Amino acid sequence: MHQSVFSSARPLIAFLTDFGLSDGYVGVMKGVVLGIVPDAQLIDLTHDIAPQDVTAGAWILATCYRYFPSGTIFTCVVDPGVGSQRHAVALRTGDRVFVGPDNGLFSYVLAEQQVQEAVTLSNPTYHLPQVSATFQGRDVFAPSAAHIARGVSLTELGPQIDPMTLQRIDLGMPVHQGEGIVAHIVHIDHFGNLITNIPLSMVPDLFSSPGMQLNFPERQVVITERRRFFSEGSTHEDDARPFVYADSAGYIAVAIHNGNAARTLGMRRGETITFVQMK
Amino acid sequence: MHQSVFSSARPLIAFLTDFGLSDGYVGVMKGVVLGIVPDAQLIDLTHDIAPQDVTAGAWILATCYRYFPSGTIFTCVVDPGVGSQRHAVALRTGDRVFVGPDNGLFSYVLAEQQVQEAVTLSNPTYHLPQVSATFQGRDVFAPSAAHIARGVSLTELGPQIDPMTLQRIDLGMPVHQGEGIVAHIVHIDHFGNLITNIPLSMVPDLFSSPGMQLNFPERQVVITERRRFFSEGSTHEDDARPFVYADSAGYIAVAIHNGNAARTLGMRRGETITFVQMK
Amino acid sequence: MHQSVFSSARPLIAFLTDFGLSDGYVGVMKGVVLGIVPDAQLIDLTHDIAPQDVTAGAWILATCYRYFPSGTIFTCVVDPGVGSQRHAVALRTGDRVFVGPDNGLFSYVLAEQQVQEAVTLSNPTYHLPQVSATFQGRDVFAPSAAHIARGVSLTELGPQIDPMTLQRIDLGMPVHQGEGIVAHIVHIDHFGNLITNIPLSMVPDLFSSPGMQLNFPERQVVITERRRFFSEGSTHEDDARPFVYADSAGYIAVAIHNGNAARTLGMRRGETITFVQMK
Repeated sequence: MHQSVFSSARPLIAFLTDFGLSDGYVGVMKGVVLGIVPDAQLIDLTHDIAPQDVTAGAWILATCYRYFPSGTIFTCVVDPGVGSQRHAVALRTGDRVFVGPDNGLFSYVLAEQQVQEAVTLSNPTYHLPQVSATFQGRDVFAPSAAHIARGVSLTELGPQIDPMTLQRIDLGMPVHQGEGIVAHIVHIDHFGNLITNIPLSMVPDLFSSPGMQLNFPERQVVITERRRFFSEGSTHEDDARPFVYADSAGYIAVAIHNGNAARTLGMRRGETITFVQMK
Repeated sequence: MHQSVFSSARPLIAFLTDFGLSDGYVGVMKGVVLGIVPDAQLIDLTHDIAPQDVTAGAWILATCYRYFPSGTIFTCVVDPGVGSQRHAVALRTGDRVFVGPDNGLFSYVLAEQQVQEAVTLSNPTYHLPQVSATFQGRDVFAPSAAHIARGVSLTELGPQIDPMTLQRIDLGMPVHQGEGIVAHIVHIDHFGNLITNIPLSMVPDLFSSPGMQLNFPERQVVITERRRFFSEGSTHEDDARPFVYADSAGYIAVAIHNGNAARTLGMRRGETITFVQMK
Repeated sequence: MHQSVFSSARPLIAFLTDFGLSDGYVGVMKGVVLGIVPDAQLIDLTHDIAPQDVTAGAWILATCYRYFPSGTIFTCVVDPGVGSQRHAVALRTGDRVFVGPDNGLFSYVLAEQQVQEAVTLSNPTYHLPQVSATFQGRDVFAPSAAHIARGVSLTELGPQIDPMTLQRIDLGMPVHQGEGIVAHIVHIDHFGNLITNIPLSMVPDLFSSPGMQLNFPERQVVITERRRFFSEGSTHEDDARPFVYADSAGYIAVAIHNGNAARTLGMRRGETITFVQMK
């Protein structure tokens, strides 16, 4: 067995799934990991990805992974194809490793990072002795991640594959159209904030332009207020005006101070928006 | 103080409760534990057992405990009788310890495992100085588990009791009736999958028999489709046909691919089913 | 850099936020912490404080912090004013440290404990390189807490401030009025128990007085039953009578055995109550 670069004093494994917390599924994955690498530090990103929603899981992962230290192993399971012929994979980009199904869950990571190494998790030595067809998070992904955490190299886990062949989902990137940008709501967070997929790099003058409009063309809703922070210029605690702000993950977003923009505006993930800046 | 066999470098305590996560109850239990055994590894099975639902807690525990390593201490609190004369207990089976109320929460464990040692947690040395009548998870179970984790033997915690006297709830085991098996829905998971209490060992030819029927006699619903994995033979993403599969915990279950069987079929935990195989 | 008293073998950081668990916000804070202090023990109090509800966060924190060991660093983020001129602070009382916005979130702690040291978190050395205006939990509070955990003294983090100037919210303490006490429901827990803000120290004869009445004057609901524990004197499992008990945090509360008092009585947080003891 070759030692990998990922042998730290206390390996860190981060989990992202659509398993929820009401069953023991997440706990069992952690039990399996700690049976292999007892000293691991285990952190939850979230387990509340909507069931089978690979696109939503890919987005949340994209907003998180950069903030984790070198050597973090991300174990990600949103896996409607569990048990089918879809590949189970591990991939390394820089000093981070991602373990999960090859179904597009890593699409943002693949769009942003160079992959140095990718393998299929086909070596049963690193799985549980019995692999079910319906819970490979427990039987394949958790033990594989744990073995990586204790120093097993990726190439031990299965044959290498060309990173270019990894599945990617259509991320629906924003496009310039006339004076504006056509994009969509990519996420609604716990506070009801509407996160768009327009990166701040596309609108560097968000706060310095004379004005801007964010439109929901299907709703005849137009937002023209901009704020640098939620309480900026707020006069009432229950002030219900929606405004545009720069989300912490680096995207344009819509919020209502001390309110829930998604609920107030009746908006859902996936809705189309257009964004126009005054010149 | 005698050293027990449970002194590992980094003791592992797993929690299962009906406390939810919206109060600080679970956090406080962990704070108490870490005040006694700072290096413990703390893992959540779930805290979303329905309030006071001992049967549901017993089931989830049954699906989890085998996947945890030697030496794990399970701290389980679903305890409608907290503060009453019901016993607080710790029991050891093999190299695992279970701590909690003696109210049936460990019924599946007791049905499956030989108990080597059982004690009541009556020694106040190992409780918090003040024991409330309403939160013994914090005052009795957490500190007792923590002391076990740092090497206190069970017999220090209180007098031994005969394991045969431990409370057991009626698990409603499936029974053969005519050509079929009469059983019930024992759990509905986060995905809306309906888990029955028919172990796969009762139907070893689930996938090799000419056919099978799972009936909900009170509903006039009959399921005849079998799948080895969720996406098997699926033609549409939103294909709404329910099917029978082998659940990862080793029981027969019903799901809808990319759907929620419980919601679609309007089923609840406890419903009767009958299962018949063609010959 | 001065070493503080908070250098333990395995520093403990406890988190309380209104972030929920459906986004990656909590996970990202932990990733940031572990990048700075990889060996930290990370515990969740709760992340389900209602959005922007500083008063609710202050209460939950008050019921929890005493149960955590010496040296615990509480990182608390319920922060409607994030990005505004409100201070980010760290304060030390005894051997515990609290990190968060200076908006009243620490009001109960300040009412109960002597603060030895308080600073504003204005030294960018201990923040992330880029500080957003909308997620300072990630950019300011998490890294500051992590640096404290690895031994940085509070005075390194920013200028000292007079603890008397820290923001306090009106805690609406109960008042004697005629024969009784006028108070309110300060919290509804996961079980639907109604927690009042009447400390048991105000009613030392709760169980020894000839009788008592807890009234909801706006509802014409009067409760006269007292119980030492939930199942005391219970005749039916589904017995729906509300009763008064001594909550584990040291306050008078109302519950229904195996039921949900808030739902059954239709009560909400903030409702006024009066409490009278017979003599």
